[in-house]
Amino acid sequence: MKKSVGNTSISIFDSTLRDGAQAEGISFSVDDKLKITRALDELGVAYIEAGNPGSNPKDLEFFQRIKGMQLQHSVLTAFGSTRRPGVETSEDDNIKNLVMAETPAIAIFGKSWDFHVTEIINTTLEENLDMIRDTMTYFKSLKKDVVYDAEHFFDGYKNNPEYAMATLQAAKDGGADWIVLCDTNGGAFPQEIFDATARVLQEIGGKVGIHCHNDGGMAVANTIMAVEAGATQVQGTYIGFGERCGNVNLCSVISNLQLKKKMSCLPEDKLKEVTPTARYIAEVANVSLNEREPFIGNSAFAHKGGMHIDGVHKNVMSFEHVDPEKIGNKRRFLMSEVAGRSTILKKIRKVNPAIRKDSEETRQIIDKLKELEHQGYQFEGAESSFELVIRKTLGKYKPFFSLDYYKIMDEQLPDGTHASSAILKIQVDGKDEVTVAEGNGPVNAMDKALRKALETFYPELKEVYLADYKVRVLDTRAATASKVRVLIESSDGRYVWSTVGVSSDIIQASWLALVDSIEYKLLKNIEEKASAYM
Amino acid sequence: MKKSVGNTSISIFDSTLRDGAQAEGISFSVDDKLKITRALDELGVAYIEAGNPGSNPKDLEFFQRIKGMQLQHSVLTAFGSTRRPGVETSEDDNIKNLVMAETPAIAIFGKSWDFHVTEIINTTLEENLDMIRDTMTYFKSLKKDVVYDAEHFFDGYKNNPEYAMATLQAAKDGGADWIVLCDTNGGAFPQEIFDATARVLQEIGGKVGIHCHNDGGMAVANTIMAVEAGATQVQGTYIGFGERCGNVNLCSVISNLQLKKKMSCLPEDKLKEVTPTARYIAEVANVSLNEREPFIGNSAFAHKGGMHIDGVHKNVMSFEHVDPEKIGNKRRFLMSEVAGRSTILKKIRKVNPAIRKDSEETRQIIDKLKELEHQGYQFEGAESSFELVIRKTLGKYKPFFSLDYYKIMDEQLPDGTHASSAILKIQVDGKDEVTVAEGNGPVNAMDKALRKALETFYPELKEVYLADYKVRVLDTRAATASKVRVLIESSDGRYVWSTVGVSSDIIQASWLALVDSIEYKLLKNIEEKASAYM
Repeated sequence: MKKSVGNTSISIFDSTLRDGAQAEGISFSVDDKLKITRALDELGVAYIEAGNPGSNPKDLEFFQRIKGMQLQHSVLTAFGSTRRPGVETSEDDNIKNLVMAETPAIAIFGKSWDFHVTEIINTTLEENLDMIRDTMTYFKSLKKDVVYDAEHFFDGYKNNPEYAMATLQAAKDGGADWIVLCDTNGGAFPQEIFDATARVLQEIGGKVGIHCHNDGGMAVANTIMAVEAGATQVQGTYIGFGERCGNVNLCSVISNLQLKKKMSCLPEDKLKEVTPTARYIAEVANVSLNEREPFIGNSAFAHKGGMHIDGVHKNVMSFEHVDPEKIGNKRRFLMSEVAGRSTILKKIRKVNPAIRKDSEETRQIIDKLKELEHQGYQFEGAESSFELVIRKTLGKYKPFFSLDYYKIMDEQLPDGTHASSAILKIQVDGKDEVTVAEGNGPVNAMDKALRKALETFYPELKEVYLADYKVRVLDTRAATASKVRVLIESSDGRYVWSTVGVSSDIIQASWLALVDSIEYKLLKNIEEKASAYM
Repeated sequence: MKKSVGNTSISIFDSTLRDGAQAEGISFSVDDKLKITRALDELGVAYIEAGNPGSNPKDLEFFQRIKGMQLQHSVLTAFGSTRRPGVETSEDDNIKNLVMAETPAIAIFGKSWDFHVTEIINTTLEENLDMIRDTMTYFKSLKKDVVYDAEHFFDGYKNNPEYAMATLQAAKDGGADWIVLCDTNGGAFPQEIFDATARVLQEIGGKVGIHCHNDGGMAVANTIMAVEAGATQVQGTYIGFGERCGNVNLCSVISNLQLKKKMSCLPEDKLKEVTPTARYIAEVANVSLNEREPFIGNSAFAHKGGMHIDGVHKNVMSFEHVDPEKIGNKRRFLMSEVAGRSTILKKIRKVNPAIRKDSEETRQIIDKLKELEHQGYQFEGAESSFELVIRKTLGKYKPFFSLDYYKIMDEQLPDGTHASSAILKIQVDGKDEVTVAEGNGPVNAMDKALRKALETFYPELKEVYLADYKVRVLDTRAATASKVRVLIESSDGRYVWSTVGVSSDIIQASWLALVDSIEYKLLKNIEEKASAYM
């Protein structure tokens, strides 16, 4: 576990479950926390800071429940404050809760900024130094791995550098294993971080870490600058959420350091899990991952401009700073009016290889694409619907069923009960089928009725399920009359495909996406059977 | 317009309409572009790069239409490439399109990376230098303000520094007014940017700019480092969207430089328009602004953790790096289980000032809050619904109407026509009202039927309209059976209030949010009348 300055090994300290829980919109259940702990341990981060047992009874329950779980790679850490002013360390309630958590590592935050000492926690500068030193000494006597978080270090250093340095010396004197410099308000500049970190390493020494927030939009760079100055622990949250603008995104730090600076943050074979782990944590946390997030975002390696796409086809290095596969992400070429004909042509040729760039059909498909985009469609995340558009335009499409009608009812009854149901009638090869289904809501009822009707004719649809369902309200200012775009991701256990529908009626938009999903599956089945005979 | 190194004035060059249009999910109409041009001019950026007339007929149309519009602060700029290899500058089609745009400024990009010259555009290193010099000379002969974008400068500089510098010298020799160093692939590190920019200023001199992409997550810091090295033009997009991970977010650069480095980027009185302009552009572009975006995000000054909230109540400087009002954003205290009792207590006391922190009612409300959060509710963006929860728990609530039933029908008929309608029956003071309405979709039909019924009893509801309607699918893996959270923002022209509803049925979730919205309005009307008598 020893890591020293100049070594290329960086200790990754993940605070998704503690600082991340302070983010707007985040509310973890104990089960969520257990799932995320498992994912981070599997990925191989050095420390998992999992909660503050003194501030939150849910966190205390988490530490009780995790005691039976054996972590493979990570050291479990509980977080709390130094003892309060004028209280014996072992008698402080928060300290007692930290002990009860029974974690091998403890992270303690204390005050480095003189203004916070006198104005916010209302004590003397001398007592604050004692609080830091005593708390370190106490946890070292319990044989804990002790991480000291110097809250507001950089603001404190700007205001009163001698005092800020004295607080670090107090932590070192108390035996802290790590001294972590925090830009708690997130407003520091890269050069400031570099200079202060270098001075701490020179004057205080020992193992130094960095903890940055993103209020100035510079958390990643600030972290990297601290590492360049000699810091060897990086604290952050896995996909960057946290109080206000969030903590530094560890995905970006890990990818930058390990791919470009050749500093080891994760076991080498785990690097390709960086993106899948981010998506998993986002799902558990129930947040949407920012599409443009560096390294892990869905758009991070998506090429749209015609010149860029042509460049990447010639040599990926022309418009990519790293190989997306190394971190488990992937390259995408987007379909759009600025994509250029060559990208669209590739899709068209999958359906009919005889078509050329200047064929009349290519122009027709581009015109259709523009018209649909104007209506609110986007095919960037719905490539299967786009393939159906191509087939329909080329006449390479025969519907698998036709709809006679659907009637959806959603009722709140006088006795307060609530019901959603759908009746629909379809035809396949001249045969009618009428079905009715109830559902959790109107879209669910329609989905069930349609499957019931079609499974009579196409039993292979039994293996299809919807893996994801998203609704985007377009032009929200039209309020309940706005158009909505529905995106559906379907799977049959082997493949995943995505389809889209747009309408001002959410039921109709869902219907359109659902029909595309089913038709695409049936089409692929026919193609598979055909190729099996060749 | 003259700006030189050492001066504190930074020329802001906005490329939202050009590089921003390369972002996934962005598709501007000509009208969108005109709206955004007006907003940026009003804000006072130095240059607006509005499109590439050579690559896109829509951009050509934009430049035709904008000729009649007089800009107050900004210089309109058209973007394109240097002449092609082996072609006379004045005969090159892209160059002709640039001339046709008739803008006072022209931005020309050329190649600085030897690999791109030989491998991507397939010409010689010498011809590339001629292409750059000739294109500059040509546009200077037309009296244009000429900005030279050195594409891939930093990658080129790493690979072959002499050649990269030679391309800049060619641009300078051709008469370029600005030489802009581009980190096109977005993978450079802050110290690299600083060193290379300082060398360019020393060896080439003149006015130098910086253009960063965010693939490494460091675009803001890289831009700031270039400015610290002496660059005086900053290129970026207004809220940071662009190819892949986006361009540098100008909101962050402007706020950092003007508030903290005392460098002027915008007229001083326009700084408070930074956030409203971002929200306006996001609306026109139809993108959701990242909540955590530094400076301008809705969460950027939102405090959730109990200790943070207490600190900010004592002194805002304790957990805020800048004053949010200076850039037109605002401070928020979030309601949640980690918020601490004091925040919730403030809301409770607005309804009943007699209640204390340790009152039984406070505990009941906190329990109710936790239960609703567990169901999927979030009150962080729906404070009016939370006030209604408090009132209901405290018995300070009397319903304004009761629902007997609603029946919503959504039909696709055999002839292909589509209809949504709602029937509902309510009671007010023992009087029944049954209404029916058709709508653009089922939620819209219900919304209209409810208003029709209530306006009979409460004519003041005529002034209420829905300003925003958002749908969030919770746990998307349950697909069409997922719970949805509906957020509604309502306005009566003077106030804006937000309400929330959660259900697996989108119609019911919308109903819940709608009822809260209407009840909140009626409640406030009564309070206003009451206070008028006091």
